[in-house]
Amino acid sequence: MFGIFPSARLKPSPYYQATVTAGVTSFTVYNNMLMPTGYGNPEPEYWRIINGVSQWDVACERQVQLRGPDASKLAQILSPRDLSICKVGQGKYIPMCNHDGVLINDPILLKLDEERYWFSIADSNIWFWAAAIAAERGLKVEVSHPDVSPLAIQGPKAEAVAVALFGDWVKDLKYFWFKETTLHGIPMVVARSGWSKQGGFELYLMDSARGTELWNIVNEAGKPWDIGPGNPNLHERVESGLLSYGGDTDQHTNPYEVRLGKYIDLQVADDVIGIQALRRIHAEGPKRHQLGIKFEGDQPNPFGFAWEPVFQHGIKVGDLTNAVWSYRLQCNIGFTLISTRAQPGDTVEVQRASSWVRGTLCELPFL
Amino acid sequence: MFGIFPSARLKPSPYYQATVTAGVTSFTVYNNMLMPTGYGNPEPEYWRIINGVSQWDVACERQVQLRGPDASKLAQILSPRDLSICKVGQGKYIPMCNHDGVLINDPILLKLDEERYWFSIADSNIWFWAAAIAAERGLKVEVSHPDVSPLAIQGPKAEAVAVALFGDWVKDLKYFWFKETTLHGIPMVVARSGWSKQGGFELYLMDSARGTELWNIVNEAGKPWDIGPGNPNLHERVESGLLSYGGDTDQHTNPYEVRLGKYIDLQVADDVIGIQALRRIHAEGPKRHQLGIKFEGDQPNPFGFAWEPVFQHGIKVGDLTNAVWSYRLQCNIGFTLISTRAQPGDTVEVQRASSWVRGTLCELPFL
Repeated sequence: MFGIFPSARLKPSPYYQATVTAGVTSFTVYNNMLMPTGYGNPEPEYWRIINGVSQWDVACERQVQLRGPDASKLAQILSPRDLSICKVGQGKYIPMCNHDGVLINDPILLKLDEERYWFSIADSNIWFWAAAIAAERGLKVEVSHPDVSPLAIQGPKAEAVAVALFGDWVKDLKYFWFKETTLHGIPMVVARSGWSKQGGFELYLMDSARGTELWNIVNEAGKPWDIGPGNPNLHERVESGLLSYGGDTDQHTNPYEVRLGKYIDLQVADDVIGIQALRRIHAEGPKRHQLGIKFEGDQPNPFGFAWEPVFQHGIKVGDLTNAVWSYRLQCNIGFTLISTRAQPGDTVEVQRASSWVRGTLCELPFL
Repeated sequence: MFGIFPSARLKPSPYYQATVTAGVTSFTVYNNMLMPTGYGNPEPEYWRIINGVSQWDVACERQVQLRGPDASKLAQILSPRDLSICKVGQGKYIPMCNHDGVLINDPILLKLDEERYWFSIADSNIWFWAAAIAAERGLKVEVSHPDVSPLAIQGPKAEAVAVALFGDWVKDLKYFWFKETTLHGIPMVVARSGWSKQGGFELYLMDSARGTELWNIVNEAGKPWDIGPGNPNLHERVESGLLSYGGDTDQHTNPYEVRLGKYIDLQVADDVIGIQALRRIHAEGPKRHQLGIKFEGDQPNPFGFAWEPVFQHGIKVGDLTNAVWSYRLQCNIGFTLISTRAQPGDTVEVQRASSWVRGTLCELPFL
């Protein structure tokens, strides 16, 4: 593991000092912001998410705000998912595509009011993208990066912590729905969401000067449930089949290749970006699909920075896009982006960094 | 210094293994790719660039290729600098702006032929940007990320190494001009360019499978001049007044604020993105400007991840956007982005991480 050299090109999150105090040991860079990836104890951090409750600095999920009379129009133009039924206070998971139907992000869209939306984005410059489309189409909408920085509370005990923080009303929040509120005077949006399958909430802090204060309030409220620091957890997300845009996708990946077809509404208007390409791709059927792989062997075999080639009968059929030791399955598992000729149950061989390893393809998720 | 957690979202460069072998100790992330930032010996690495020759993995300077009958048209639409006089084989430094005249990148544009251009980009998703504009304007041009990965040779002895590698013709390459060639069968473009003021070349490797091979060929050819590994050097670039997009700029920065006004041609056509805003900004005069600062004190005082506020007479007038120990000036220096009310010669106080430090503003570059 190598060091990260500091510069102002990589932004600290509002929770940066709090995570340093909590003992963060490694980061990744996401939307030009440092995101904690570990606090030195991978296995306890994993089980805390599975069995308890964990607090995460996910400020790097930056918000791209659309505001103005044409905000709804622009939101739909950018989203090949039908937003006509999206209500104020509701979030929607959106596979965002370019004109060729290539996936360029997979944000959560939050509808704050009829003229204000946030795209809570994965790791790519959607500010650029949305602003380019808005300006080129002459829409009356301001596209900006507001001062909003999510902190996630994830795990089966997250709801208890959220109730302690906000009161019983959070129990009534449906999945991806949200509400604007304050906590000790700190302005925020509280949503039932988060990048795990263990349940929880995201607190969209709306005043970056108060990051440490919010971190500590959550930590204090969570003590009865033994809350501790964590982060979007590679082991959990692979077991749960969650997609990582940019990690599991390349510059040719369309939503149908990575299990996102159900979020595409082909009947949306023709001015929605990518919809014509997506209709064609849907009609022809994708050439690749995303399958899981369970490896032989009983020792952890960590993944590096690059995709690893997958072979079947001596021919390259795809790539391994991530791999991790599954604490629950007690084997190495990963995602492949692979020819549709390869099917669940097939045996394949992967050229891992250290050696060739055999595995069996399967449907996702693992758990 | 914290560790970087590996994932396929952060790409390794084609030179990654070679830099690991060479003893890289830290990285930054730039265009979703790891870029080495040090090999464990900062001061010798600095003097190697000033007095000798250094080889750098700058594969993270990704290329956005425009190809097709409308490539020239799109290149000009994206560039508020007049390209009508740009010849095949010539490169141009381009402040690239959005519709509001905000700087969104500062690439080198390489004109490969009348229908093919590369933008050798700083750290932002220009692929998205260029593709959005091309599609929205219905231009016949393909926007892609080709397999091109620069390796820089920088320092006063770089020309001698380039001659040893390629022959005497490289001496005739003018600044920012380039030529397509091969080296031991490896396809590449050789340009006289690089992110230092010490002179040198960039080898745009066009086959990522041959990164280690190219790194080793350069290393072997450079031995008579004691070549060694290096990287875009923070100390040298601050002394030399080189701008770091995203580090020294924010979401409101226009080219006039950061000494790039000379690269804007206000008479370009009205369909060039941002030109109308730039004309207005130019007429009104910018509100901020970029000045150097020389600090009091004789001990290195490193910069972190965030801008630091600059005060004059107790009022915040701007930000310190970088700071570094100057080995040649033997003091701490940095860049400010500051109100035009503050002028060279003024004394200001900066709230550094550890304490308040006084400094004197000056014109850039320092050296």
